[in-house]
Amino acid sequence: MKLQVTQANLNRGLSSVARVASSRGTLPILANVLIKTSKNRLSLSATNLDIAITQFIGAKITEEGSVTVPAKLMQEFINSLPEEIIDLETEGNKLKVSTDKYNSVVNGIAADDFPVMPAIKKEKSWDISLSLFKKALNQVVFAASSDETRPVLTGVLIKSINKKLYLAATDSYRLAEKQIATINEDIEMLIPASALQDLIRVMDDNDTKLTIKNDGQQVLFQTEDIELVSRQVDGQYPDYAQLIPTNFTTTAKLKRSDFINITKVSSLFARESAGSITIVLDEENQTININSVASQLGENTASAEAKITGAGEITLNSRYLLDALNVFTGEEIEFCFNGKLEPSLLRDPKQKDYKHIIMPLKS
Amino acid sequence: MKLQVTQANLNRGLSSVARVASSRGTLPILANVLIKTSKNRLSLSATNLDIAITQFIGAKITEEGSVTVPAKLMQEFINSLPEEIIDLETEGNKLKVSTDKYNSVVNGIAADDFPVMPAIKKEKSWDISLSLFKKALNQVVFAASSDETRPVLTGVLIKSINKKLYLAATDSYRLAEKQIATINEDIEMLIPASALQDLIRVMDDNDTKLTIKNDGQQVLFQTEDIELVSRQVDGQYPDYAQLIPTNFTTTAKLKRSDFINITKVSSLFARESAGSITIVLDEENQTININSVASQLGENTASAEAKITGAGEITLNSRYLLDALNVFTGEEIEFCFNGKLEPSLLRDPKQKDYKHIIMPLKS
Repeated sequence: MKLQVTQANLNRGLSSVARVASSRGTLPILANVLIKTSKNRLSLSATNLDIAITQFIGAKITEEGSVTVPAKLMQEFINSLPEEIIDLETEGNKLKVSTDKYNSVVNGIAADDFPVMPAIKKEKSWDISLSLFKKALNQVVFAASSDETRPVLTGVLIKSINKKLYLAATDSYRLAEKQIATINEDIEMLIPASALQDLIRVMDDNDTKLTIKNDGQQVLFQTEDIELVSRQVDGQYPDYAQLIPTNFTTTAKLKRSDFINITKVSSLFARESAGSITIVLDEENQTININSVASQLGENTASAEAKITGAGEITLNSRYLLDALNVFTGEEIEFCFNGKLEPSLLRDPKQKDYKHIIMPLKS
Repeated sequence: MKLQVTQANLNRGLSSVARVASSRGTLPILANVLIKTSKNRLSLSATNLDIAITQFIGAKITEEGSVTVPAKLMQEFINSLPEEIIDLETEGNKLKVSTDKYNSVVNGIAADDFPVMPAIKKEKSWDISLSLFKKALNQVVFAASSDETRPVLTGVLIKSINKKLYLAATDSYRLAEKQIATINEDIEMLIPASALQDLIRVMDDNDTKLTIKNDGQQVLFQTEDIELVSRQVDGQYPDYAQLIPTNFTTTAKLKRSDFINITKVSSLFARESAGSITIVLDEENQTININSVASQLGENTASAEAKITGAGEITLNSRYLLDALNVFTGEEIEFCFNGKLEPSLLRDPKQKDYKHIIMPLKS
């Protein structure tokens, strides 16, 4: 392999893929990045066996070939070089990296030993706007569980219902559901939230087309420059729709920034009680009040003006409330519930394609 | 105690002092900040028994008094409040904090139990420009040792020699010495580097006067708004001046940014060898070359143009070299040594008031 590439391109590509490589595993080559010529481009790949990411960058290729080198070293090394042309050349399993002022030899492992993700067979394929998909993922992915004892909850459900596409995630304490597009294909897949977090990170924000290919076992997310392959999560996703209440006895409408502020302040006093805060809707004074009582630290009440219908109170985990409030984008927010034992709902009064449910704590 | 204070002032004051308070100690009150009226101002104090910091802020005081409350909670709480007027009022050992929208009661401990740093007795006092002193400290303080088994090396020596004031620190692998001012007083004190790091952090950068009061046991650094008291380090500081070479057989003069870049790149390949890099001065080609050989990772050579007098090579710890290069301010740097076993010197060719010595590694 012999080629020239700009520092900027190589640096961008390595930054995207290197984080997937891991030196903690048992297979040393998983800490490496696969560098490989691919027609007139250079492909950079890393995998942790759950997901694989490949980024293609422009390069001037003199001689085809491939090698794998330690991902972290390579990324930091290229990142610390000045913005100029870099020469890459293999010599056995070594990669010679040179510029005007720098000459390095990085020891690698033969590319043949690099694990290949199984190809997608009998695929279903469909396209969606990348920016739309990323925005939707951002509103949903954090609600998935990180507890591997219930694997289905570590996934994000991507499913078409009545020609509409839904994304949903829940850790059983909270649930996020976003409706994004009308779609003709019949889709149902469960993707690990961690893979989707990598997708959010590596895919550029420019408004390009994202192609999704799915064979039931694996899924491929593909743009012109990047491919991300992930396994799918096995198992039956819970029928969450029945958990979403549709009518409410108690509703508050207020500025989202006000709700964030009073929640933040109250959460500081809620540390001893594992983040537990009590939200009191005062219909008479048209205020929303948050109380936290921390026996050691003291106590706190924070208030904000709100349009209240039906008085009531409910106790929630302040972190879940903040997580949810932060992914809305509108200026106003609606907070609704039915008594202190039923799930509460957050929604944007102007944009009802996103629903966020938080289960109450016993108070 | 009853008073009004702006959120901005209280937040600034708490940010300065709260970091000194520690909840790890055995004395619970050391995790608290002492809030106390002081004439027409409010004083905020925290101590870890090694140092004590007091910041004075403006306040509208209705009733004098004092209380101590958990420093971290109080700082985060005030920081999360909007910029408005805050009412503070004590009720026994509780502090009521209220604004328009927020009402909190923070549980405290009586101020009488707060440990007081012993007063400075029979003091020597002298003044210096704060910005000058801070800049000098920044060039010296990191060279002190963090190894408590040789306590004198954890201090920074502040000493007058022939009516000139010197700051010096060494961890026995490197040494930094800065000359800052002509001075009439006879000064010699050894201050813990950690206290001086706090001083750098809490003292504002505006060009005000710093008063230093010293009684041999303790030292007080004082501006209009802030007081920092530190213990002094006991023991005889090594006679370091004899370690600083004055003549050199080998010298390189180059752009400081070039030297930083080639050192950074080389340090990446030097991880397996504990940061060890070999610097080769090539008189014929007028270049400075850095080699690092890492058996596992590969090898690296980086070069920069330099004005070389006398060829030679020396092996150094790349982290020490980077630390030193980063505290110089000039565009050019001089790097000098006498053979691979003697200490090397870094200096600014245009400003010789700062000397930085790095001991070689065996190569």
